Amino acid sequence: MEFKEELKIKIDEVMKLITPYIPKESGYQKLVMEAMNYSFLGGGKRLRPMFILESYRFFGGKNPEEVAVFMAAQEMIHTYSLIHDDLPAMDNDDYRRGRLTCHKRFDEATAILAGDGLLNYAFEIVADKMDKEEDTDRLKRMVKANKILSAKAGINGMIGGQVVDLISENNPNTDKETLLFIHECKTAALIESALMIGAIMAGASDEEVSKIEKVGSNVGLAFQIQDDILDVIGTQEELGKPIGSDAKNEKVTYVTMEGLEKSKKDQEDLTKQAIELLDGMNHSNEFLKELLLDLVTRKK
Amino acid sequence: MEFKEELKIKIDEVMKLITPYIPKESGYQKLVMEAMNYSFLGGGKRLRPMFILESYRFFGGKNPEEVAVFMAAQEMIHTYSLIHDDLPAMDNDDYRRGRLTCHKRFDEATAILAGDGLLNYAFEIVADKMDKEEDTDRLKRMVKANKILSAKAGINGMIGGQVVDLISENNPNTDKETLLFIHECKTAALIESALMIGAIMAGASDEEVSKIEKVGSNVGLAFQIQDDILDVIGTQEELGKPIGSDAKNEKVTYVTMEGLEKSKKDQEDLTKQAIELLDGMNHSNEFLKELLLDLVTRKK
Repeated sequence: MEFKEELKIKIDEVMKLITPYIPKESGYQKLVMEAMNYSFLGGGKRLRPMFILESYRFFGGKNPEEVAVFMAAQEMIHTYSLIHDDLPAMDNDDYRRGRLTCHKRFDEATAILAGDGLLNYAFEIVADKMDKEEDTDRLKRMVKANKILSAKAGINGMIGGQVVDLISENNPNTDKETLLFIHECKTAALIESALMIGAIMAGASDEEVSKIEKVGSNVGLAFQIQDDILDVIGTQEELGKPIGSDAKNEKVTYVTMEGLEKSKKDQEDLTKQAIELLDGMNHSNEFLKELLLDLVTRKK
Repeated sequence: MEFKEELKIKIDEVMKLITPYIPKESGYQKLVMEAMNYSFLGGGKRLRPMFILESYRFFGGKNPEEVAVFMAAQEMIHTYSLIHDDLPAMDNDDYRRGRLTCHKRFDEATAILAGDGLLNYAFEIVADKMDKEEDTDRLKRMVKANKILSAKAGINGMIGGQVVDLISENNPNTDKETLLFIHECKTAALIESALMIGAIMAGASDEEVSKIEKVGSNVGLAFQIQDDILDVIGTQEELGKPIGSDAKNEKVTYVTMEGLEKSKKDQEDLTKQAIELLDGMNHSNEFLKELLLDLVTRKK
């Protein structure tokens, strides 16, 4: 089967697993559920829950229901971060994926609460599932996965990256270490946690969990570099000329810092390392490999 | 000892227990920890963590360290809700407890992220503690407490109440059922969960947890009615006349709906029931009783 075709089927599978966790739109507070679900159901490739599911399979997991709640929670966390990122005080975006952003479709106060609602609900559905779990071994795996879920999304993960991204936005003197911190936290952290959660729930060893974390870190950075590369190529095509010294006043990216050729090479090296790490473990999941490769080599 | 004096000692005790959980202000993302801690350390009576601790003691708990992480988490959740509530798109407040609000002291984007950071960190410190817990019985109590913590703070608890409060703000036709929903969720939910978490961690039975939940619900509502009563009395004193028909255009409160006398009576009945429920259990904690009474009978 073509990868694109398979991806479509996998997205459907992810949606089937996570949809039961969506909050019912009812009660006096119905509006906040509507706003949450408006953004949650706004499309996208569902990469993070897909990484959980495929990492789980890579490490031999056979019962997707075991990871479904984490898949839903991870996607809720990703969605809340987009809602808050789009707010006027942050990126001030009116559209996302061709639809009005949450605060444009509803209003700002509702969008703030919908974001809070999604973040809280992510931990709520996991907490509820843990409380219902009767198998102590599985509970302990869930507790470990819950720890990763929360840590990678927080101030030493995604939120930390967002803060530094905001601070650095108009600073042409941002150094490479800071830039790597932003990418590691803002982009890679949730990819790492997705892969780690799948591994933990499948019963992977601590060593394996560390290896898959490194895969996520490499893929996250490669993904971000590719993003920066595509931005430059897009800009060159639009302007009909290569970007020049005026880039100084623009946002510092991996490409403005390292140049296009070095960026391409670094991206390829990171990807290669990630694939080698995957291949070096006694497991396999061809789709996961293709998915990771597709992500970092995409052309738009 | 005088109650006021004892309260001061208890606040110090709470601070000693929760301070170790405050995030260290370091790293590139230091700013977000500073903003979180600025609001977290902004004073207040620390009622919610105190309720956890004193409910835990009421049910026979002897080791405050068992509940410390939940005390810190609950206070973080309360603090984040204040930070987001104060934002321009919400209540637009410049001051809280005599200090600049988070978005005035820092900026709006930082305040949004500091709120997100605190909410996430609340679940993160609990998740970390659960992962380190080696005693399976205690772990299971923590899992149950974590479930209550998340559920009462979410869209069917505090956030739900905030949404309905926003919707109803300028609606003079708000009915009593809606008003009770707002108070139950916005004010009572975190008091309920605090009391429940203390009970669960001390090993209380399901029946006892239900009873203490009811105590929290009554106290929360009585607290809110008292708030409304004090507002009216304050306004009357300021204006030198009782509030009259012009109140129609103001926010609907328990007092505008039921009248001052009935409100006072309802507040007293709710408080009496709560105390009877407490007295009916085979436990005692005089300070908890005084604390609850002080809360609902306060004069300012």
